[in-house]
Amino acid sequence: MKILVINPVTTARWLEEDREYLQGMADEGTEIVMVGLEKGPKSIETFHDEVYAGPEIVRLVKQLGNSVDAVMINCFADPAVDAAREVTEKPVLGPAETSMSVALHLGSAFSVISTFPNTAPWIKRQVRKLGVESRLASAVGVDIPVLDLEKNPGKTVDEIVTAAKRAIDHDGAEVIILGCTGMALLAQAVREQLPVPLLEPASVTLKMAEMLVKLGLHHHHGQLYLTPSFDKIEGY
Amino acid sequence: MKILVINPVTTARWLEEDREYLQGMADEGTEIVMVGLEKGPKSIETFHDEVYAGPEIVRLVKQLGNSVDAVMINCFADPAVDAAREVTEKPVLGPAETSMSVALHLGSAFSVISTFPNTAPWIKRQVRKLGVESRLASAVGVDIPVLDLEKNPGKTVDEIVTAAKRAIDHDGAEVIILGCTGMALLAQAVREQLPVPLLEPASVTLKMAEMLVKLGLHHHHGQLYLTPSFDKIEGY
Amino acid sequence: MKILVINPVTTARWLEEDREYLQGMADEGTEIVMVGLEKGPKSIETFHDEVYAGPEIVRLVKQLGNSVDAVMINCFADPAVDAAREVTEKPVLGPAETSMSVALHLGSAFSVISTFPNTAPWIKRQVRKLGVESRLASAVGVDIPVLDLEKNPGKTVDEIVTAAKRAIDHDGAEVIILGCTGMALLAQAVREQLPVPLLEPASVTLKMAEMLVKLGLHHHHGQLYLTPSFDKIEGY
Amino acid sequence: MKILVINPVTTARWLEEDREYLQGMADEGTEIVMVGLEKGPKSIETFHDEVYAGPEIVRLVKQLGNSVDAVMINCFADPAVDAAREVTEKPVLGPAETSMSVALHLGSAFSVISTFPNTAPWIKRQVRKLGVESRLASAVGVDIPVLDLEKNPGKTVDEIVTAAKRAIDHDGAEVIILGCTGMALLAQAVREQLPVPLLEPASVTLKMAEMLVKLGLHHHHGQLYLTPSFDKIEGY
Amino acid sequence: MKILVINPVTTARWLEEDREYLQGMADEGTEIVMVGLEKGPKSIETFHDEVYAGPEIVRLVKQLGNSVDAVMINCFADPAVDAAREVTEKPVLGPAETSMSVALHLGSAFSVISTFPNTAPWIKRQVRKLGVESRLASAVGVDIPVLDLEKNPGKTVDEIVTAAKRAIDHDGAEVIILGCTGMALLAQAVREQLPVPLLEPASVTLKMAEMLVKLGLHHHHGQLYLTPSFDKIEGY
Amino acid sequence: MKILVINPVTTARWLEEDREYLQGMADEGTEIVMVGLEKGPKSIETFHDEVYAGPEIVRLVKQLGNSVDAVMINCFADPAVDAAREVTEKPVLGPAETSMSVALHLGSAFSVISTFPNTAPWIKRQVRKLGVESRLASAVGVDIPVLDLEKNPGKTVDEIVTAAKRAIDHDGAEVIILGCTGMALLAQAVREQLPVPLLEPASVTLKMAEMLVKLGLHHHHGQLYLTPSFDKIEGY
Repeated sequence: MKILVINPVTTARWLEEDREYLQGMADEGTEIVMVGLEKGPKSIETFHDEVYAGPEIVRLVKQLGNSVDAVMINCFADPAVDAAREVTEKPVLGPAETSMSVALHLGSAFSVISTFPNTAPWIKRQVRKLGVESRLASAVGVDIPVLDLEKNPGKTVDEIVTAAKRAIDHDGAEVIILGCTGMALLAQAVREQLPVPLLEPASVTLKMAEMLVKLGLHHHHGQLYLTPSFDKIEGY
Repeated sequence: MKILVINPVTTARWLEEDREYLQGMADEGTEIVMVGLEKGPKSIETFHDEVYAGPEIVRLVKQLGNSVDAVMINCFADPAVDAAREVTEKPVLGPAETSMSVALHLGSAFSVISTFPNTAPWIKRQVRKLGVESRLASAVGVDIPVLDLEKNPGKTVDEIVTAAKRAIDHDGAEVIILGCTGMALLAQAVREQLPVPLLEPASVTLKMAEMLVKLGLHHHHGQLYLTPSFDKIEGY
Repeated sequence: MKILVINPVTTARWLEEDREYLQGMADEGTEIVMVGLEKGPKSIETFHDEVYAGPEIVRLVKQLGNSVDAVMINCFADPAVDAAREVTEKPVLGPAETSMSVALHLGSAFSVISTFPNTAPWIKRQVRKLGVESRLASAVGVDIPVLDLEKNPGKTVDEIVTAAKRAIDHDGAEVIILGCTGMALLAQAVREQLPVPLLEPASVTLKMAEMLVKLGLHHHHGQLYLTPSFDKIEGY
Repeated sequence: MKILVINPVTTARWLEEDREYLQGMADEGTEIVMVGLEKGPKSIETFHDEVYAGPEIVRLVKQLGNSVDAVMINCFADPAVDAAREVTEKPVLGPAETSMSVALHLGSAFSVISTFPNTAPWIKRQVRKLGVESRLASAVGVDIPVLDLEKNPGKTVDEIVTAAKRAIDHDGAEVIILGCTGMALLAQAVREQLPVPLLEPASVTLKMAEMLVKLGLHHHHGQLYLTPSFDKIEGY
Repeated sequence: MKILVINPVTTARWLEEDREYLQGMADEGTEIVMVGLEKGPKSIETFHDEVYAGPEIVRLVKQLGNSVDAVMINCFADPAVDAAREVTEKPVLGPAETSMSVALHLGSAFSVISTFPNTAPWIKRQVRKLGVESRLASAVGVDIPVLDLEKNPGKTVDEIVTAAKRAIDHDGAEVIILGCTGMALLAQAVREQLPVPLLEPASVTLKMAEMLVKLGLHHHHGQLYLTPSFDKIEGY
Repeated sequence: MKILVINPVTTARWLEEDREYLQGMADEGTEIVMVGLEKGPKSIETFHDEVYAGPEIVRLVKQLGNSVDAVMINCFADPAVDAAREVTEKPVLGPAETSMSVALHLGSAFSVISTFPNTAPWIKRQVRKLGVESRLASAVGVDIPVLDLEKNPGKTVDEIVTAAKRAIDHDGAEVIILGCTGMALLAQAVREQLPVPLLEPASVTLKMAEMLVKLGLHHHHGQLYLTPSFDKIEGY
């Protein structure tokens, strides 16, 4: 089984690290095909960045979709997941929707913790789009400058743990979802300090992709997802 | 990995058939531990039947939970799933909640098709409990006497296909879920006649159980799920 | 008129006290038929306990339902209410659903206050099942060990009043529901200290049962509630 | 116990008939105090009519509220129920909200059947205001000219039964509510032809009023319902 | 273009001030026709007051509706808006519904700030009636005696700004709506101190009225809004 | 006042026609600045097409936003509206959200009629994102090949009218929204055959844009909409 993992950013230095992490989480026999964007955003923090990631994501799925068994867009914004589904018959998953659906089985309510100032309204919209708003306990954006995230991982872990504990005690969270796939390597340190299950979304999405492949399941083309005409696009 | 599968009925003749089916769906290295009830209902079609299945399900999870990695209650009514979660730290899954959460990734709306006269209101309640009512297209109970289900599987398949196609055309279903784990062996025949993905809930639940084990995820004890005192039960 | 009141626990010493309380609340001419369980949980605090109460509740309704005019399951978990409805044509009521529906007429939002650590998520699920989530202000579990409830009733009253006042001031509660039928004797002391109406669920349920009998109303068999086959249960 | 029943219309000829009907439904010892409007609409079929009923309803509750134990506004539009609650400490009930809350205990979904062309959107709005939209199966306005309602009651019964059966078979209704208190005398004829419980809203509201009186429950003043200053009204 | 603006109160001294304010906000060529009530409440703070405003509002719309292009009921309670729609074919707008619908385009969630003790539950009900509850961040009633509102406008502005900032920081509000059309002259002072857009509802409603006129849009008569028979009203 | 209208497609031949139509709808003194895409989709019918329109839309708003007063993305998919809001302080509107919010004032429920096979699920998702799902009567995709739309406008009008009338009679629609801005020139012919108001989304959006400009309202940057860093985009 081959899983195409698209890092929808141009920052190439995360590619190998992420591939190793996901390969380590994969079933024996699963091969992670890790690709990044040639053009697009260095990271995705806004709708603006998401828009610039879209064409390259779609191009990669068109190009590589037939040679793999499933596709995973490795960013919690779930960028271009719907468009990707239109250009392949292979299952396509985004980490936000996947993590939230798995959280439904682990407790009565989940909170999403991330490090962006727009986390709370962004997550509330994603939850409404997925249709699980009654299961969201809270969404919290811890205020950490992006550069500090890598420079001082210990501080980041502390801030996330503090926010998660507040979500558990005040908002009734029984599951915590990390709202960014870039926190995979911090997840274990967070997990050890929390009394409730912690979902690291990249790993959850990979396993769901493997699961859908084994079950032979993929989305239908013909209602929400049509089969687009490629040659109506000009200039790309 | 060992998955405890509880057929929450006393009808023993389905046990080996179900075990073989699930063992065939399992990952290499996964062992299906299949058990039925010594006392309880012959089949579950009503709330009444579900009540009588409960104590035995809980007893089996208490007795066998420690020796396995996850538990699956093999009935679309998801009987005693919440109670089972209280008596073990291993993940516990029910087919209805699991299938519905996976369906979220395969299309904009799902329909559940089953063969009980109470299917429509029952499913609507399950969907509301799970919190995904905005994603339900419809719930349909095809009217087939239980005995006919086995006697004339071809007719059953036809009726389910007809109902599913109506759900696709009239209700906007993009995913069909079979609303009974007893239809596993008919699933392939139905699937071949439908343009949209068909979820056979027993297999989906097994794969989700394997996935949670691999991810090291299980529910939290302390909020919705407490740790009950066993010796407060008298007479069992 | 006879109302069957089932205390779904094996603790017999509450039976006479509860019978007297309810008989005192009943209309002239209403006879309270109070029964407890021969086997099952000493008290209901978890899904686990609820499961073990189920078969005896159903047995009692089968045995005594024909000789009474309505049935009331005297526990805020509303255990086996749906199954009980399947085995009798007499109206069957649970205190949680009944109190919540009456609260709709007394203010814009209600809070449920109880003494269990799982109160908040449990109530939220009940509210979603009943379909009145937009009217819930909050659900609060005051942390009092069960033994202290009886030993130090004054302290219990104080804690409940404090939680209720916080729900009124912070969550907008205009009605308070006691989330346990075991607090009936404390209700008056709480009521005197609150500015908003307090619903003691056992008394509200009794009066609703009398009302349905006078109106000749009972649930329908044939859609959500079928008529189960008793002889499909083995070993009970 | 005295229950003030306000027929919020100027048509006096229904008063005695309604009083007799409700007195016949009342508990022994309950006295029905039946009053109509001196000025206002002859009947309530529109928002326009409802507006003209308001000041007189409030005037009557101010004038008579202290001499009774509860107030019932006898029209399915629930006109001025909120305003009436502000001018008395006695419980005030409207038939629509009361019937819908009682229907919650009798089946998984209810339909409202009435004879106005605006029934469907009007009921949907009432259901949303009450917060029970997930329990509404459908709302149907049978097209019968008002004059025919009384001239040809048999035809009216037939049309309502036909609509109710369609709601049961197609929309999943397990409870039917008559969406007009003016159909009280037809209710029994409808009830006999339906397989599911039929709620006649005037009788249900009367019994709920008696119940709230017996329980000593009434709404709170201070949040949604304030205590208005009477002398700020000029010209009435 | 003529816009009929009904101040649904008998307090005449606000009429000219409001007319000037709205005329100043109007398009060139729009004439504001400002009228107050001859009988009714001095101000609207309760359901009681709203009821007494109704008949005069309807009378004015009947009398003046044909000579204008649109109607605006200038009070955040949106009194008699539905009834007014029944007696004219011209568009009729209320400030609460209009402001809330415009707020949907300016941020992910809005808060309503007003100066009445019943603001929070009242707004929650309005939001539920309009159907936009998922977009409400919070509703807050700042506690200022009515007389102080005019005596000490600086203090009123301060209290509103404080409440608005709390709504922004704690409840996630990205838009603030002033929950009273009587605050129009304070709006600018509030606006200058807030980082998010502030909606002054009277001006928003006027512009929406102009917009509907230019687009030739008005509500339909025949479903929710019927054409009432005027002569069924007696005594008015 | 200048309104930037972006036709988010590369098909230039619609530009002048659309500009004339919108200029004709505009207030005196409003100038329509009409631009199309240099690269991107010829038309938008799928998520795939929407993705390819995004970068150019954002580029145009960055480039031209400062020289206009408001921005309108002229496609019912509301493509890149959120991203566009991040790169300008001027109000940005999409036709779907704008039309739906205006429809709230014109009747109890609206239906959207369009000509794409994915209309129904697409609209349901947009409605859920906007948060007005309780006001949607239905969404219908009339099956007309795109080429036929222009070749045989009479047939297109007939099909839309037929679908709209069915939505009115069967689904309770009191407002019809055309679900495509490309139908502007057909709108009048449809309108004349319908008993309920018809919203042509391009014109509604233009008027709302003018209205927001006159009111001085625009979205806030800092919560859902951040201010993106332009230089993090590579290759564009």
